Amino acid sequence: MPESPKTWTAALVIIGDEILSGRTDDQNIAQVARWLNEQGIRLCEVRVVPDEEKAIVVAVNSLRTSHDYVFTTGGIGPTHDDITVDSIASAFEVPVVVHPEARRILEEHYKGRSPGLTESRLRMARVPSGAELIPNPSSGAPGVRIGNVYILAGVPNIARAMLLALDGKLEGGRPMVSVTVRAHAAESEVAELLKEVQDEHPGVLIGSYPFYRDGGFGADFVVRSVDADLVRTCADALAERLRSVGIEPVEQG
Amino acid sequence: MPESPKTWTAALVIIGDEILSGRTDDQNIAQVARWLNEQGIRLCEVRVVPDEEKAIVVAVNSLRTSHDYVFTTGGIGPTHDDITVDSIASAFEVPVVVHPEARRILEEHYKGRSPGLTESRLRMARVPSGAELIPNPSSGAPGVRIGNVYILAGVPNIARAMLLALDGKLEGGRPMVSVTVRAHAAESEVAELLKEVQDEHPGVLIGSYPFYRDGGFGADFVVRSVDADLVRTCADALAERLRSVGIEPVEQG
Repeated sequence: MPESPKTWTAALVIIGDEILSGRTDDQNIAQVARWLNEQGIRLCEVRVVPDEEKAIVVAVNSLRTSHDYVFTTGGIGPTHDDITVDSIASAFEVPVVVHPEARRILEEHYKGRSPGLTESRLRMARVPSGAELIPNPSSGAPGVRIGNVYILAGVPNIARAMLLALDGKLEGGRPMVSVTVRAHAAESEVAELLKEVQDEHPGVLIGSYPFYRDGGFGADFVVRSVDADLVRTCADALAERLRSVGIEPVEQG
Repeated sequence: MPESPKTWTAALVIIGDEILSGRTDDQNIAQVARWLNEQGIRLCEVRVVPDEEKAIVVAVNSLRTSHDYVFTTGGIGPTHDDITVDSIASAFEVPVVVHPEARRILEEHYKGRSPGLTESRLRMARVPSGAELIPNPSSGAPGVRIGNVYILAGVPNIARAMLLALDGKLEGGRPMVSVTVRAHAAESEVAELLKEVQDEHPGVLIGSYPFYRDGGFGADFVVRSVDADLVRTCADALAERLRSVGIEPVEQG
């Protein structure tokens, strides 16, 4: 029997008092999740923690041993509340050092901009000892990788630019494929048949997501698997079963 | 010396494959965070976990002992993938029972609606033994409270309705007060003075959130504390310090 392929997993740590206070709506969970899926890596857990070293250390150390990859967003700017690099250095029990290439990038970036590369700006060249840089095409300060931990910016478009710089560079497996079957029916009306279809198709997951729109109930049934053929077979079976009880499904692709 | 008032803390567990796959953008973190703040309760951690019993049990059991309150969203509908109630019963090591009042609410709700209160719909009356209901003014199925764990719907407007039903009913402390001082300057230019103002004002937290808009850099400096006078004093001091280096701040309130 062929060995089933390895599932590559990741966790995400959002470092942000501004998310926990409700001031800022998070945009990084969704974009990291979608990007990981394209890389064939499954996002399995997200934690949002405050800007506190102890909380960051606990989350990163718990997740980096249980997942192939850990991503963090937030807390890598030049101000006093940016403590991600120091916290992750603590988690790895290594000192913080100035990365020569990061320093060069920042010197270049701030050349001719008053007051030049100040001590605060130089904070953005600090990395845990042994770390590599993640290119940041959108602004001066780079991201940082140490071990299996990828430290990204919190500002969503900068985080996005760092993800794009990592495109295709991480080892992953087969991406998850999904097909959504939409039905204009309350999910409670079709729960039994849905469970039957789920039970008849091991290897796929069917999620049911209800909505209420334009005065009517409906639900999206999302069929997911790394096996595209299995997804297709299962989605077809579900559509047929819905038709057999008089519900005409709409496939969303 | 008077004892300093207790800080009431909460954690949130988002149960949702759809969030981890990137299919759905989360809207519950922000609304739960803001609502908790109004109740004088601090949201200290969020975890997003998949629709898997083991993951839910681990998260809930780890967080319910370390926080005053735990909220969960998602997984309480009528379909096979709705496993929150069973998982939290496992976490508390109690059986799942049909709550008579929940059954009555659902009987009422589905009266005259074909095919009536089916087995799937009755799933929504199941609760961990010993639990109480959380009223759901927006649709039939109620939320559930067991111990310090509050089980809410995942659909944002239904979760919202359940939160409103809990308004003012949870013991909390003083709500966090914040004032935002906006400056049209790169945060790296003002990082030193920001740190000085932070160091001079113990008891407040200053967060710095950069933005780039209309061709210019800017940052919001958010001053937060449960002590409104302290927030005011610190925000005024920060504004004055910014003016002293030629930056005219805009207060956002």
